[in-house]
Amino acid sequence: MDGEGGGGLKPMDSEQLREYGHQMVDFIADYYKNIENYPVLSQVEPGYLRRLLPDAAPNQPESLQNVLDDVQSKILPGVTHWQSPNFYAYYPSNSSVAGFLGEMLSAAINMVGFSWITSPAATELEMIVLDWLGKLLKLPQEFLSPGHGGGVIQGTASEAVLVVLLAARDKTLRRVGKSALGKLVVYGSDQTHSALQKACQIGGVHPENCRLLKTDSSTNYALPPEIVSEAISHDISIGLIPFFLCGTVGTTSSATVDPLYSLGKIAKSNDMWFHVDAAYAGSACICPEYRKYLDGVEEADSFNMNAHKWFLTNFDCSTLWVKDRNALIQSLSTNPEFLKNKASQANLVVDYKDWQIPLGRRFRSLKLWMVLRLYGVENLQHYLRNHIELAKYFEECVGQDSRFEALSGMYTLRFAVGAPLTERRHIAAAWKVLQDEASTLLGTPLQDNGNPS
Amino acid sequence: MDGEGGGGLKPMDSEQLREYGHQMVDFIADYYKNIENYPVLSQVEPGYLRRLLPDAAPNQPESLQNVLDDVQSKILPGVTHWQSPNFYAYYPSNSSVAGFLGEMLSAAINMVGFSWITSPAATELEMIVLDWLGKLLKLPQEFLSPGHGGGVIQGTASEAVLVVLLAARDKTLRRVGKSALGKLVVYGSDQTHSALQKACQIGGVHPENCRLLKTDSSTNYALPPEIVSEAISHDISIGLIPFFLCGTVGTTSSATVDPLYSLGKIAKSNDMWFHVDAAYAGSACICPEYRKYLDGVEEADSFNMNAHKWFLTNFDCSTLWVKDRNALIQSLSTNPEFLKNKASQANLVVDYKDWQIPLGRRFRSLKLWMVLRLYGVENLQHYLRNHIELAKYFEECVGQDSRFEALSGMYTLRFAVGAPLTERRHIAAAWKVLQDEASTLLGTPLQDNGNPS
Repeated sequence: MDGEGGGGLKPMDSEQLREYGHQMVDFIADYYKNIENYPVLSQVEPGYLRRLLPDAAPNQPESLQNVLDDVQSKILPGVTHWQSPNFYAYYPSNSSVAGFLGEMLSAAINMVGFSWITSPAATELEMIVLDWLGKLLKLPQEFLSPGHGGGVIQGTASEAVLVVLLAARDKTLRRVGKSALGKLVVYGSDQTHSALQKACQIGGVHPENCRLLKTDSSTNYALPPEIVSEAISHDISIGLIPFFLCGTVGTTSSATVDPLYSLGKIAKSNDMWFHVDAAYAGSACICPEYRKYLDGVEEADSFNMNAHKWFLTNFDCSTLWVKDRNALIQSLSTNPEFLKNKASQANLVVDYKDWQIPLGRRFRSLKLWMVLRLYGVENLQHYLRNHIELAKYFEECVGQDSRFEALSGMYTLRFAVGAPLTERRHIAAAWKVLQDEASTLLGTPLQDNGNPS
Repeated sequence: MDGEGGGGLKPMDSEQLREYGHQMVDFIADYYKNIENYPVLSQVEPGYLRRLLPDAAPNQPESLQNVLDDVQSKILPGVTHWQSPNFYAYYPSNSSVAGFLGEMLSAAINMVGFSWITSPAATELEMIVLDWLGKLLKLPQEFLSPGHGGGVIQGTASEAVLVVLLAARDKTLRRVGKSALGKLVVYGSDQTHSALQKACQIGGVHPENCRLLKTDSSTNYALPPEIVSEAISHDISIGLIPFFLCGTVGTTSSATVDPLYSLGKIAKSNDMWFHVDAAYAGSACICPEYRKYLDGVEEADSFNMNAHKWFLTNFDCSTLWVKDRNALIQSLSTNPEFLKNKASQANLVVDYKDWQIPLGRRFRSLKLWMVLRLYGVENLQHYLRNHIELAKYFEECVGQDSRFEALSGMYTLRFAVGAPLTERRHIAAAWKVLQDEASTLLGTPLQDNGNPS
């Protein structure tokens, strides 16, 4: 920004955007080119960055090169490289060229899409693309936009479960009276994501009324329907009001699938909302051979899948479908004077502000649209199958080393394959690390049955 | 993505990212170059896009050029151009070269920063940059990170007011008992942003207990402290429990400033949380001559300003400071097994997941950091002052046309200057439009006192 002086700042000059944008593209492409040279987990100590940066913002502008030098030398060492092919922690957070381009375009248009009128394309593209993805997942028709339901992009699965919990809470309270909030009960399992508990905290559900039912190895840590039924009956008998049940397709700890059909039937017969959280595993269900894991979703009131986990769409993009969008709107709408407009008043359009916690929202559908178009469904299916193959390869590695069999039941390895750049050689290298650790731990040298070919 | 076939998708190839990234930079730079050629408000009818796009995602990949052609011919006509220099609706949503570059970098690193360990740089840069901005705003020391307080980037002001309302709610319920939720009362004015009411809905505060006190022209629509005191006394006398007061610096409808100091004193003497919403106007307070509008913020428990409105930082970037971060953490933390790590367990670090609604979060501090560094404080002050000058120029225009004086009190023109590209000529053109409308309305020709020079 040199040479502009204090009086002539042009913060959105198209030619400067062009020049600096190209410079940034090269910086980022080089980062990806060299990504394997970084340690996956950042090695810094708490407080490292404060020692490297000044105490206050600069009075005068600095050059982009200065800033990029700092990114290279001060920021990147503090980054845990989720895009590294050697990242197997938590769940993957997929970036892709298409997703990245979508983020660029969204940042460039930089509109705030609370109502349809604030950029009709943002609302309409979101509806269309969520219908596309819903069809790929073979979701029941009621989840698609032409009827009373529809899809919406939330920031995270935490927000998805929160908004449907609020919708369910208010729907129930309209039936039983507002003063009953303290009697409402939520059900999930001890494998359900902690977002459920947080949603209860936020929505004012009594912490003691959030039932995380115990699971064990007899059901492979899936939630047994009879345990749910018993808990619900007991709660009703003591005057409480069951209103929300969460099932999971692909739990965080062990990717277990809850029995959706039975859980859904229980929820329905007790006038409860049934939410299905498939944040991670849902992506795989666009492959016909894995669609079976969603069987029973037709009994659900809402369904969530994170395209930002394993579907090549940059964070954040958590796709949520509901059968009854009015339940969301009744909980989350506000209609102040300054947001009124003809299209909304005439009820001709969807205003996504009423489907979510914040008022403002980014143009997030662009990146999902670009992923679907630039890769195409067959490529995406191939991508998911390839990761599943890589995970099987890792399983084979483990199976051929008797020391790991010997330890099973004591330590559990959770190894999440899903980074876009991961290939067979990265799995082999990770396995080598684990074997070396085992050798050190057990005091025995590495055996020669290291990697299956 | 042609030529890769179904078997060889490389979704994160560095050279493809380079090639396509450059292509996208040029597309975006051209958009900004021509931005004045678009009608600011999208002219499409509800449902326009569904007629232009296919019913399902493509099986085979499409070329980037195809997609960009569709962006140009199908998406952009449905965009309301918030970055146009002729955009004066709602509030501005500032994009800038620096903010855009920050978004690019954040999308490229694409980490999910829920805990410090998931990318230490993301947490630490956020703390540092919020301290920088807090110092520019001359916030009291208790809001900065070295003590018990600190800053955090939320997505929107709605989320900011929600998280502090939840913190206040739970702090009060710890004192008076959980069953008192139905007795809690919130106070704001009829000019307070609708986000306060939505936060009450979400947090389970009784809708009848959200007091939006009436204001009028006698205080220029600011909230009179004596009205607040009376309402609180009355509520206490009937057994209710006041717990939260929201003051505004720059209301949505007329940019009014509530009397922070007096409101803060009232809140303190009643054991209530005092939140200050300066979402829009806060930016201007980095100029010494406008800092007076924050006088009294030292009495607040929390303070919020949207860098994505008028501070050249792309949406979303809502900066929130609190004096007692533990109040947030006590309301919003969950600590499941899969998120445990040494640094968090030892309490050595900040884990921002416990300061916000979602679990996952983007690397949003990068863009604010780049704005502060690439422009520098003096340029930013100049930028804000220039917009205020332009608004004054508009005021002059209006003042010189007697027809608008004559109508005042019947119609209110809300004209928000703040788009990065806006210059004096855009104001003049907008004024011309308004004059022409007035001529049509009044049946009188345009007078020759149109624009002050």
